[in-house]
Amino acid sequence: MNVFETIEAVRRSVRQARAAGKSIGFIPTMGALHAGHLSLLDAARGECGYVVVSLFVNPTQFGPAEDLGSYPRTPEADRAACESHGADAIFAPPVEEMYPRPSLTQVAVPPLARGLCGRSRPEHFPGVCTVVAKLLNIVGPDRAYFGAKDRQQAVIVRRMAEDLNFPVAVVVCPTVREADGLAMSSRNRYLTGAQRVEAAALYGALQRAEGLIRREHPPAETVIEAIREHLAAHAPTGVVDYVEIVDPRELSDVQRTDRPVLIALAVGFGRARLIDNILVD
Amino acid sequence: MNVFETIEAVRRSVRQARAAGKSIGFIPTMGALHAGHLSLLDAARGECGYVVVSLFVNPTQFGPAEDLGSYPRTPEADRAACESHGADAIFAPPVEEMYPRPSLTQVAVPPLARGLCGRSRPEHFPGVCTVVAKLLNIVGPDRAYFGAKDRQQAVIVRRMAEDLNFPVAVVVCPTVREADGLAMSSRNRYLTGAQRVEAAALYGALQRAEGLIRREHPPAETVIEAIREHLAAHAPTGVVDYVEIVDPRELSDVQRTDRPVLIALAVGFGRARLIDNILVD
Repeated sequence: MNVFETIEAVRRSVRQARAAGKSIGFIPTMGALHAGHLSLLDAARGECGYVVVSLFVNPTQFGPAEDLGSYPRTPEADRAACESHGADAIFAPPVEEMYPRPSLTQVAVPPLARGLCGRSRPEHFPGVCTVVAKLLNIVGPDRAYFGAKDRQQAVIVRRMAEDLNFPVAVVVCPTVREADGLAMSSRNRYLTGAQRVEAAALYGALQRAEGLIRREHPPAETVIEAIREHLAAHAPTGVVDYVEIVDPRELSDVQRTDRPVLIALAVGFGRARLIDNILVD
Repeated sequence: MNVFETIEAVRRSVRQARAAGKSIGFIPTMGALHAGHLSLLDAARGECGYVVVSLFVNPTQFGPAEDLGSYPRTPEADRAACESHGADAIFAPPVEEMYPRPSLTQVAVPPLARGLCGRSRPEHFPGVCTVVAKLLNIVGPDRAYFGAKDRQQAVIVRRMAEDLNFPVAVVVCPTVREADGLAMSSRNRYLTGAQRVEAAALYGALQRAEGLIRREHPPAETVIEAIREHLAAHAPTGVVDYVEIVDPRELSDVQRTDRPVLIALAVGFGRARLIDNILVD
C-alpha cells in the first residue's frame, strides 16, 4: 500500500493504475476510521481495481465554534486499517498541499443545504462540496463512496457530481451500527459512559418512527412529536438540534408520510453532536 | 472533423484520442466565432494533439434583461471556420443535454466577481464558472483556451481551476483587434455604422491611459478621468458602465499606477455592451 502526501504523487499512481486498465475507487474520509468507513473500503475493493482512501481533516467544513482542533486524529491506526482492508493507496495531504492559499472558489448546492444540518452549520456543506470537488479532480475516480449516516452530505455530493458532470458514480453505502443501534461515528468517542448509553435512543427513536409510519402514515408532525418524546424519555441529557421529515431527494419538508420520506435528526451530548437518519420507502 | 451533440459522444472521442497518446486542447465558446476565437483554436492546434471547440450559448450566464434571445447564432459558419482552422471536434449540445434539469449546484469565485462586469452582471460569473466546470468535466482537456478580451472571465476561470485542482492548464491568449483597434466581439454586430466608428474609442482611451501611466504614473483616479474624457470626446453616444484600474490578479481597485495594473472598461452603444482592457506592467 502506498501513502502519498502530495497531489502530484497520488495523481501519478492513479495514472499508472489506469494505464494498467484498472478502474479507480475512492473513499474520501477525515480519518479516525471506524467500521463504517471500512465498509466503504470493502465495497470499493469489491468493485474497483485500484482503491484510494483520503485522510484529510478539512478545515473549511468546520464552523468557528466547532471541533476542528479536537477532531480525533489516529493516523497510524487508519493506515493499518486501510492496509488490512486492501486499500492500494492512502492520500494524506497536509493542509498546505490542499490549500496553498485560501480557496476563493466556492462550490455549493444551496437548495439542498438549507435544512437539516445546514441550518445550524451554514459553512459546512459549501466546505464539503468544495473539498470533494478538489479531491475528485485530484484523484479522478470512477466511483466515489459515501456513508448513508451522513445522508444530507451524500445527497448533496451526488447532486453536485451530477450537476457538474463529474465523470464519477457516487455510491452510498448503508450506515454501520453498534450492537445497540448507535450509528458508527468518529465523534462517538467524545461520549461519556452515561451519554453513550443514552445515544442509542437516536436509532431507537428512528425505528419507532418508521414503525409508526408503516402502520398509520400519520402527518409528519405527529411522527416528529413521537420522536421527540422518545428522545426525552431515553436520552434526557441530549439536546435536540433538529428532527425533520423530508423528501429523500429534494430534502424539503414534507407533511405526508404515505410516500418515501427521510427522517433525520441531530442531538448534542456535551461536545458530541450526533446525527442519524432512516429512509422509509 | 466530428460534430457531437451528446456528452457521451464527445467523451468517447476524447477517450480514443487519449488512448492514441494525444493531448487534449479545448476552446469553450458561445459560437458566433470571429478571429479572436480562431486565434485560440490556432494556439490549441499548435500545442495539442486533439482539439475540441464547444459551441454553446449558456443561458445561465445571461441576466434576465440581457441578450440571450438575440445573441447571434451562426452554426454553419462556425462549423466551416472550425474545420478550416483544423479543429478535430465540435461539441454543440442542445440546452437539455447540458441542463436536463436546473443546476442546483453553483460554482463561484465571489471575491473576484464583485467589481468590473460583476457589478452590473451579478449572475454572469457564477453562470460562467458553473458551465466551465461542467465543460471541463465533460471534455477533460489538458489545456483550455480563453481570450484576454474577457479578462475578468479569464482571471476567474484560472483561479477556479487552480482552487479546485482541475487537471488543466488555463491558457490566456491576446485580444484580437480590428484595424482601428476595436476588440473582436460577437456583439460588435449589434453596432450601427455610426456606433461602430465611435466604438474604436474604447481601445483609443486604453492606449492613451497606458501612455499616461508609462510616462507619469499618476494616481488611478487621474487616469480614469482621462479615459472618461477621451470617451466623452470620441464616443459621445456611448454610455459608460465602468472604467476601473485594478490589480491584475486580485481584481481589487488600486490607487497607485507604478506597479502592474489592469485597466478595464465597459461601454454600451444601444443594445451592444462592449468591454475592453489593457494590462500595463
